[in-house]
Amino acid sequence: MTQLQGIAASSGIAIAKVYRLEAPDLSYSKTDVDQPEQEVKRLHDALDISKNELEKIKAHTKNSLGDEHAEIFSAHLLVLSDPELIKPIEDKIKTDNVNAEAALDETANMFIDMFKGMDNEYMRERAADIQDVTKRVMAHLLNVTFPDPALINEEVVIVADDLTPSDTAQLNKQYVKGFTTDIGGRTSHSAIMARSLEIPAVVGTKDITSRAEKDVMIIVDGINGDVIVDPSAEEIRRYEQKQADFEEKKKEWAKLKDDPTKTADGEHVELAANIGTPEDVAGVLNNGGEGVGLYRTEFLYMGKNQLPTEEEQFDAYSSVLKQMGDKPVVVRTLDIGGDKELDYLDLPKEMNPFLGYRAIRLCLERDDIFRVQLRALLRASVHGNLKIMFPMIATLDEFRQAKAMLEEEKQKLIEEGQDVAESLEVGMMVEIPATAVIARQFAKEVDFFSIGTNDLIQYTMAADRMNERVSYLYQPYNPAILGLINNVIEAAHAEGKWAGMCGEMAGDEIAIPILLGLGLDEFSMSATSILPARTQLKELSKQELAGFKDEILSMGTSEEVVAFVKEKTNQT
Amino acid sequence: MTQLQGIAASSGIAIAKVYRLEAPDLSYSKTDVDQPEQEVKRLHDALDISKNELEKIKAHTKNSLGDEHAEIFSAHLLVLSDPELIKPIEDKIKTDNVNAEAALDETANMFIDMFKGMDNEYMRERAADIQDVTKRVMAHLLNVTFPDPALINEEVVIVADDLTPSDTAQLNKQYVKGFTTDIGGRTSHSAIMARSLEIPAVVGTKDITSRAEKDVMIIVDGINGDVIVDPSAEEIRRYEQKQADFEEKKKEWAKLKDDPTKTADGEHVELAANIGTPEDVAGVLNNGGEGVGLYRTEFLYMGKNQLPTEEEQFDAYSSVLKQMGDKPVVVRTLDIGGDKELDYLDLPKEMNPFLGYRAIRLCLERDDIFRVQLRALLRASVHGNLKIMFPMIATLDEFRQAKAMLEEEKQKLIEEGQDVAESLEVGMMVEIPATAVIARQFAKEVDFFSIGTNDLIQYTMAADRMNERVSYLYQPYNPAILGLINNVIEAAHAEGKWAGMCGEMAGDEIAIPILLGLGLDEFSMSATSILPARTQLKELSKQELAGFKDEILSMGTSEEVVAFVKEKTNQT
Repeated sequence: MTQLQGIAASSGIAIAKVYRLEAPDLSYSKTDVDQPEQEVKRLHDALDISKNELEKIKAHTKNSLGDEHAEIFSAHLLVLSDPELIKPIEDKIKTDNVNAEAALDETANMFIDMFKGMDNEYMRERAADIQDVTKRVMAHLLNVTFPDPALINEEVVIVADDLTPSDTAQLNKQYVKGFTTDIGGRTSHSAIMARSLEIPAVVGTKDITSRAEKDVMIIVDGINGDVIVDPSAEEIRRYEQKQADFEEKKKEWAKLKDDPTKTADGEHVELAANIGTPEDVAGVLNNGGEGVGLYRTEFLYMGKNQLPTEEEQFDAYSSVLKQMGDKPVVVRTLDIGGDKELDYLDLPKEMNPFLGYRAIRLCLERDDIFRVQLRALLRASVHGNLKIMFPMIATLDEFRQAKAMLEEEKQKLIEEGQDVAESLEVGMMVEIPATAVIARQFAKEVDFFSIGTNDLIQYTMAADRMNERVSYLYQPYNPAILGLINNVIEAAHAEGKWAGMCGEMAGDEIAIPILLGLGLDEFSMSATSILPARTQLKELSKQELAGFKDEILSMGTSEEVVAFVKEKTNQT
Repeated sequence: MTQLQGIAASSGIAIAKVYRLEAPDLSYSKTDVDQPEQEVKRLHDALDISKNELEKIKAHTKNSLGDEHAEIFSAHLLVLSDPELIKPIEDKIKTDNVNAEAALDETANMFIDMFKGMDNEYMRERAADIQDVTKRVMAHLLNVTFPDPALINEEVVIVADDLTPSDTAQLNKQYVKGFTTDIGGRTSHSAIMARSLEIPAVVGTKDITSRAEKDVMIIVDGINGDVIVDPSAEEIRRYEQKQADFEEKKKEWAKLKDDPTKTADGEHVELAANIGTPEDVAGVLNNGGEGVGLYRTEFLYMGKNQLPTEEEQFDAYSSVLKQMGDKPVVVRTLDIGGDKELDYLDLPKEMNPFLGYRAIRLCLERDDIFRVQLRALLRASVHGNLKIMFPMIATLDEFRQAKAMLEEEKQKLIEEGQDVAESLEVGMMVEIPATAVIARQFAKEVDFFSIGTNDLIQYTMAADRMNERVSYLYQPYNPAILGLINNVIEAAHAEGKWAGMCGEMAGDEIAIPILLGLGLDEFSMSATSILPARTQLKELSKQELAGFKDEILSMGTSEEVVAFVKEKTNQT
């Protein structure tokens, strides 16, 4: 029996035998060829088969996970049709008289190295896309089987170095009980997909692939992040019990689906969900979401060759609003730039993209893009309970400018005879420390705040949340972060406004009691976290927790805060 | 008469005729050669002459500006001796049978492109070094004169696209009355050097080179950032008067050199200087500095191939302490990483270096490096009034760790029988928003705070201070920044500690009245700003300004603050 500790990426317990998802042997010999035309044809055959497969995986993903997750395969398909990649491979075959394998490998590697060397998250992802896709084409050239998790037809736990997006998309929940990997973190693509699919997962174990033989029993504890290889009968019994308890808990949670969220002392808070596409709304409603606290509109702009039209946007926004009925939907305007680039905008490369030209900064300058979104939102506003919020606001001036543009577009639409909701709440993300510090001044002019903790923490601690070397500084419970959050909530309430939160922190079981005590009005999280949060809130007394506020805010370190909260809420 | 507006980079007024500093024509023909050995010899001759010249410029710079500024030429000399650059040029001559000019140009361009493409400030600087040095070698190969500002022997104002570090280093104050350039900013190398040399300069005029003919009269107003080409007699008279007024002012300032800094209502604040090397101390004392508020120790580690030894560091620290006598010297421990890389440490490339692995984060992990510095500081502590401060502290835990290491090294030294000052103030930079927010908690454990506004502003506003696209967000007077500063000062005073500031802001004439009103104890700035600041402070009433505190801190925008301060202090 071997026990490893990793990162709990998706909760639940999986017990089954090991299925090793390994990369096929793609080694080849470089040979001279007499008939390069033949090789070019072989290349195109392999490309065609690969495209076919990817179309199928894309459709499968769209069905099981929705448009957002299927977008990655659109990107992969674009790679396979990109003449800037394919043409050089053909040229290499013809000029150097080499076989298609060598031409593919060498050309792809050249691009991969180039993109990797660019030191830019987006380009590194493109390098990963090319790598992923090239392997598939190479397998077809070599006639070796490319691993196809969709073919699994018995209960297993997948063990792999890492799962590619295409691997994850093919997972069939009926047979794949869980997975565990050597690398990855809580926010890696495979982890996010595991949570969407509700498959237990532990990532970042460092060396599970060298510890777990094929067909041996394995336990993946996605609640605590433990992985046990070759467990004793007793261990299995213990985890079967834990699994049953977890299923029981889930059933308890499900009972709360249609209940309002009420604390032990009868206070209501709103539990909302973060979404990326209209397809995500079903999950929000199934999980008892009382609203959408963050609709990220970036996906409309990504994986495309051009900007979305006003009509495309109107359709997407209207669809979400209609599905949600009279429940509130907070739409965040375009938050692009930084690590999220758009090819077709040709943005300048920056030394520190997280501190750069992004979101509202870009939108205020490129108001040709921004106003299209504002028009689409205003037109959609008649179809539900829309609230608009601006991302990355740093100064009052920026908020005023953005709001003025919204007003101008509203007037134009009215003059054009279009229907627009009469009143519309307009708020802002609080994710830049400056706005949290002088929230009082902002509260006079905004209708609401939504605290974006992912960015707020990274700026307040001056630590890139994607950089592993400084990850110890990503401290949601640091008293400085809590102090800023408190300041925002107090400022909002002083002006009769509401304050929500749409970062990872809002669904965290240590953070929830603290935030409740600070008076947070709305918690927006992954849809699957809503029912556990509602269950937790039922047991908490807002008044009691409010009494701890001064004590918590005067603590010196994150560790003190965590220990205190665990003690007061009987968490272990 | 043409008037241009640029960035005031170094104050004072210059009136003289235009000297155009232009790049020589370095075009060449690529030719085949029969005797490559001859070409290799030509190459080495040109390299040797260039090295000789650079050694001379380096010595000249060291004399006039000190070690810190001369370091750039050490870097240039390293380039000329770098086999990784020279060997490929030789190889190209021999393999391709081309002339030295072509081999030099093509090889250098390859490296320049490679480094430029790396999207990393340090590498871009290396690209600039290679470019700068290659031009000199090329000029010698082509037997054309390389511009040599040291030869100027009549009063002129230099007009150039940009000044290279070697250009600036050769400026003779007797003849070069001022300069103005198309490009550059207040913190570009040439601007910093101009301030050290006290030569009036206006940079970033965008197109002065296309407006100013050789030998025509030109006025450079380094106070307001104006440049006037071919001024009327009346304009010249007006500026001669402004020049005389400025000289008068400087004389008034000089009278305060040995005076304590006293406000109109008799309050004392400390005016200290920021320095980089022991050679800078003379300037501090000449300008009436009451202490060193920031001794940046990075220069000891830069422009070298290896870490400085404990002895080298001990010598530098002791020299500064001895020269300053009983005046306080605040030494900041190593602040490397981010945009300041050290070749020999081989740090990982980061997506957002300003939010990355740097300063104390690196020192706590690489305590092999850190402890050497702490030992050198402790040993030097007996030679003056040393205070130690740690940069980029984000959490109490980091401060405690750093302080514990200092204590450990102190105990070891005592056990070794070395002399160490008995008590030593240990403080920290406040440059990360988190520390400003919970300054109260830190104030219990530190002996002092020094607010580093350059970084504090960039993190609080989430705007890279080197990125022109978001430069509008670099707002020292934003009420959020002032609120954090206020919090730090109040926290310090509540615990009986002192609070200083060592960012650009401390010497700014709009900021000084605000900071005085907030109760800042120590202002650390460029040495040349000390006397103007002392003069300004003499006219200000601390009590009156303190009365404006609440009003200023409740303002919404930077513009409101500036307008208010100007009105209250009669600035225009």
